[in-house]
Amino acid sequence: MTQAAYRLLLISNSALYGGGYLDHAEAEIRDLLGGRKGVLFVPYALGDWKIYAAKARERFEAMGYTLNSIHESANPQAAIESAEALFIGGGNTFRLLDRLYGFDVLECVRQRVGAGMPYLGASAGSNVACPTIRTTNDMPIVEPPSLKALGLVGFQINPHFLDPDPNSRHMGETREERIIQFLEENEMPVVGLREGAMLRVEQGRIQLKGSSGARIFRRGHDPVEVKPVADLSDYVS
Amino acid sequence: MTQAAYRLLLISNSALYGGGYLDHAEAEIRDLLGGRKGVLFVPYALGDWKIYAAKARERFEAMGYTLNSIHESANPQAAIESAEALFIGGGNTFRLLDRLYGFDVLECVRQRVGAGMPYLGASAGSNVACPTIRTTNDMPIVEPPSLKALGLVGFQINPHFLDPDPNSRHMGETREERIIQFLEENEMPVVGLREGAMLRVEQGRIQLKGSSGARIFRRGHDPVEVKPVADLSDYVS
Repeated sequence: MTQAAYRLLLISNSALYGGGYLDHAEAEIRDLLGGRKGVLFVPYALGDWKIYAAKARERFEAMGYTLNSIHESANPQAAIESAEALFIGGGNTFRLLDRLYGFDVLECVRQRVGAGMPYLGASAGSNVACPTIRTTNDMPIVEPPSLKALGLVGFQINPHFLDPDPNSRHMGETREERIIQFLEENEMPVVGLREGAMLRVEQGRIQLKGSSGARIFRRGHDPVEVKPVADLSDYVS
Repeated sequence: MTQAAYRLLLISNSALYGGGYLDHAEAEIRDLLGGRKGVLFVPYALGDWKIYAAKARERFEAMGYTLNSIHESANPQAAIESAEALFIGGGNTFRLLDRLYGFDVLECVRQRVGAGMPYLGASAGSNVACPTIRTTNDMPIVEPPSLKALGLVGFQINPHFLDPDPNSRHMGETREERIIQFLEENEMPVVGLREGAMLRVEQGRIQLKGSSGARIFRRGHDPVEVKPVADLSDYVS
């Protein structure tokens, strides 16, 4: 379902335990961006856009790229139109999607990605690349006009995917139980991306990269474990 | 904000680690129900209503009460009109609220509770007693028409409230971080109810009971720890 022109890097999490911001994804980010000089950053998932953009700018400048934040532009749509590449950062997925609707930029992002603009998403930024945000882990602190999202891929991602802790005495649902509840209500397959894992989408192929792997959930099938590097095209599209 | 006629028991979780279904809440349930003979059960938060109702029926019959499940009635509104008491069970809060809208029973529940019908909520059933479900922990597996809920109390509950695990290497937000994000977007206070804790609302008073206590979050204030038994009226209404 993902289109041949799409160039996406969808990462589970912005930082790994013990590592710095985006460190574990740096090589893949460089490869995604290729010869491009800069990225447009979307800080909408956090409350303080200025602080968030400063953190992202410092990290991308350290890699040799420029970074503009969409909140610094008077015209967010125009900023997307002229962007070389897009980076949507993590935070609260409901807030992020609500602001994407509020600034009316969803269709604009879809069109640019359809024309080959590289898209980098981390956590909430990976959630909104999916058909809906129905597999986010986040608290619904705001109510977006719809849970429909960008639909750049034809499956759902559950970022920060977490295996059950055998020592836990907590009685809330495990992540796997939550995803199985999702499949009771939806047919869309779900890729549970563990922290450290990421998906690279290019030329219609969906590759699992990074560390720690993914668990794939499909209605009517047992969950499947996949280790990187692997092509996920047998499971999702 | 809660009304004098309201009689509510809002519990964080249906079962404590090592204990049976509703065991830790039995004494409070008996006290809430008083001389009433039976309850009407709402199984909408889980996918299989029949199995869920059978489990709840067995438990209430063991306590000497009858239990009818709303899904067994051709007219859900009429079932609520004639109920002696209501028990809304846990599961997925989005699914529960979606079905409450689908069967158009929210206003009916509000009116009966306003007329003194006892209301027992567990986990998702406690979430929907609040003004909105914006402090649920659940995955948004379906999209209800609105996140507005029953509004039987003037604050939000976060059930299964969980303290941070100092040994965790997981990089997702802690529960407290998620609730602080909620307060960035909303003014409504939040009672984080640990597993084992419950709220008893009666004659306009809000009492914290059970074990393990609560953590109260209000915009512009540091979080407050409260141990049972305590009156929460200084913090929420």
